[in-house]
Amino acid sequence: MEKKKNISIKEISKLADVSVATVSRVINNNGRFSEETRQRVEQIIKDYGYTTNMAAKSLRMAKSKSVGLIIPNIDNEWFSQLTLEIEKHFFENNYSVFICNTSQDEAKEVAYFKSLDSKMVDGIICISGIEEIPTNILTRDIPIVCIDRKPKDHSNAYYVESNHYSGGYLATEELIKQGCQKIAIVSRNKTLSVNKQRLEGYRQALKDYGLEEIKDLQILLDVNQANYEGSRVAINQLIKNKVKFDGIFATNDWRAYGSLIALLENNIEVPKQVKVIGFDDIFISQSSHPSISTIKQDIPTLAKTASQLLFDLMNDVAINDEQKRYIIPVEVIRRDSTKK
Amino acid sequence: MEKKKNISIKEISKLADVSVATVSRVINNNGRFSEETRQRVEQIIKDYGYTTNMAAKSLRMAKSKSVGLIIPNIDNEWFSQLTLEIEKHFFENNYSVFICNTSQDEAKEVAYFKSLDSKMVDGIICISGIEEIPTNILTRDIPIVCIDRKPKDHSNAYYVESNHYSGGYLATEELIKQGCQKIAIVSRNKTLSVNKQRLEGYRQALKDYGLEEIKDLQILLDVNQANYEGSRVAINQLIKNKVKFDGIFATNDWRAYGSLIALLENNIEVPKQVKVIGFDDIFISQSSHPSISTIKQDIPTLAKTASQLLFDLMNDVAINDEQKRYIIPVEVIRRDSTKK
Repeated sequence: MEKKKNISIKEISKLADVSVATVSRVINNNGRFSEETRQRVEQIIKDYGYTTNMAAKSLRMAKSKSVGLIIPNIDNEWFSQLTLEIEKHFFENNYSVFICNTSQDEAKEVAYFKSLDSKMVDGIICISGIEEIPTNILTRDIPIVCIDRKPKDHSNAYYVESNHYSGGYLATEELIKQGCQKIAIVSRNKTLSVNKQRLEGYRQALKDYGLEEIKDLQILLDVNQANYEGSRVAINQLIKNKVKFDGIFATNDWRAYGSLIALLENNIEVPKQVKVIGFDDIFISQSSHPSISTIKQDIPTLAKTASQLLFDLMNDVAINDEQKRYIIPVEVIRRDSTKK
Repeated sequence: MEKKKNISIKEISKLADVSVATVSRVINNNGRFSEETRQRVEQIIKDYGYTTNMAAKSLRMAKSKSVGLIIPNIDNEWFSQLTLEIEKHFFENNYSVFICNTSQDEAKEVAYFKSLDSKMVDGIICISGIEEIPTNILTRDIPIVCIDRKPKDHSNAYYVESNHYSGGYLATEELIKQGCQKIAIVSRNKTLSVNKQRLEGYRQALKDYGLEEIKDLQILLDVNQANYEGSRVAINQLIKNKVKFDGIFATNDWRAYGSLIALLENNIEVPKQVKVIGFDDIFISQSSHPSISTIKQDIPTLAKTASQLLFDLMNDVAINDEQKRYIIPVEVIRRDSTKK
């Protein structure tokens, strides 16, 4: 490749094998990169004689007082509640929040990243969804904060999540403490780290309390089945197959509700014969009949932590670079479905 | 006021007592205004010697391939489903949709209109919420389509809604046909046209079937009470007060579900002793136990009609100016809660 004078940031990033955002941070001497990265980028800049376009730079630095919020499904109550909390926080700070719904479609997510970039948002919050973040398509150095997803490219992304492992452990422990011995788990297969961690917590609790893992009781549904209806069908099948169980840990409240309805349809009394616990503490868990015990994720703290972090990053407040991950505790909400 | 040369569009709009958007349409000779308005605006332009700034005009005409979507509450399943349908439609046409949540707060709505304007969206869809649309703050002539709200300023806004009157009528008629004689309505007071129309339909059906209106059975809740919990409390109160009724028309499914739970708590059998019907056909009405009959609004048609209309307006497709209002039929979904 011939050395040319008008090399772009994008080309520098390719040559240095780092993201565009990282090149931008090195140029702007904006903390978050390793010494080795700095040297590599600066060498390329020197070799190719890159000079910062000051007009473009000032444009890049202009604040639009708006942020983008990428969410997988706004018709999922848990996501929408989190969105509302985040929106409230930014609005109080005179920021507009543009919500982009991706339906967990990778092409849509990429399109929205591009679109938010061209709309000059000052930062982006990503909730869950796919784990590969298309940061390489951003032309500006804007910070990204993720909730409930562990970004694969860590360079420019910070993340905040509930303690899902602990949630899985506590849910299972609650069932054990209320006398359950054969505990089913209803979750999603081939899946996000969130569900993996919940499953791990379940397995560890069984182990710690000396209960054996029963493969037939690990119901890991496909993405399209991992909902109310799929869970209802799966528990009906379990009953039909005469598999014995006395407790169900469903890894979200819709799955718990589907499981509960299946039990009621088979005249199995809840909590007397089978106890049920869910995850998320959404409205259906409070309002079902009987009400469903669940693991409450602390939405206000998740929202506040993520918002404040993005706010600090956008406003160049010094952030401890070591701390890129924030884990928020969860708690058991005991309701009728796990009473003795 | 002294006549000056560099008058702005905003000043012209004030002098002519029309919106900025209307002035812009007159200047661009873009159909949607009355002859009288044209004359008034053109006279002011002549008097003050306004000349169009062509650069600004071209900027105004540039397409950003994005639209704004204003919604009152994304954590309401009905709104979020409608949003998803609209989003899908635009995404298929290579448009990005920026969702703005207002929490029915007027200040927020105004802020989002401004922000969408400065982000150069090509058009806006407003779902429900307040009925006064702050179109006067828009600096560009972009079309607006409303769903389920009747904009007070009709100049630039088109609207699409379900037939709420017919919905109220059909719901009440369903209860009457299943044998109910004393039918309560659980709705919202001091309210959007949507709820007014549903109440009117209820009253007309009672009248047509020769049933008297009973004031004690018209439960019109405050905004903050017009939800699951408020409805549950209200029906409990009705039972405590020994008011007789054998049917409940709740003007949304959450109110229907709250009413149902109150009946179950009082060991009143549904549908045997009291029948219940809701409105919207959201998930809770299918998945409750017993399932709840409801009035289904045709979300795909609402979304498609509104999206296509905005799409045509943005792309200067000729629209019949008489047709500013589109009314979409609704239908009864019969489930267990109104069975004989």
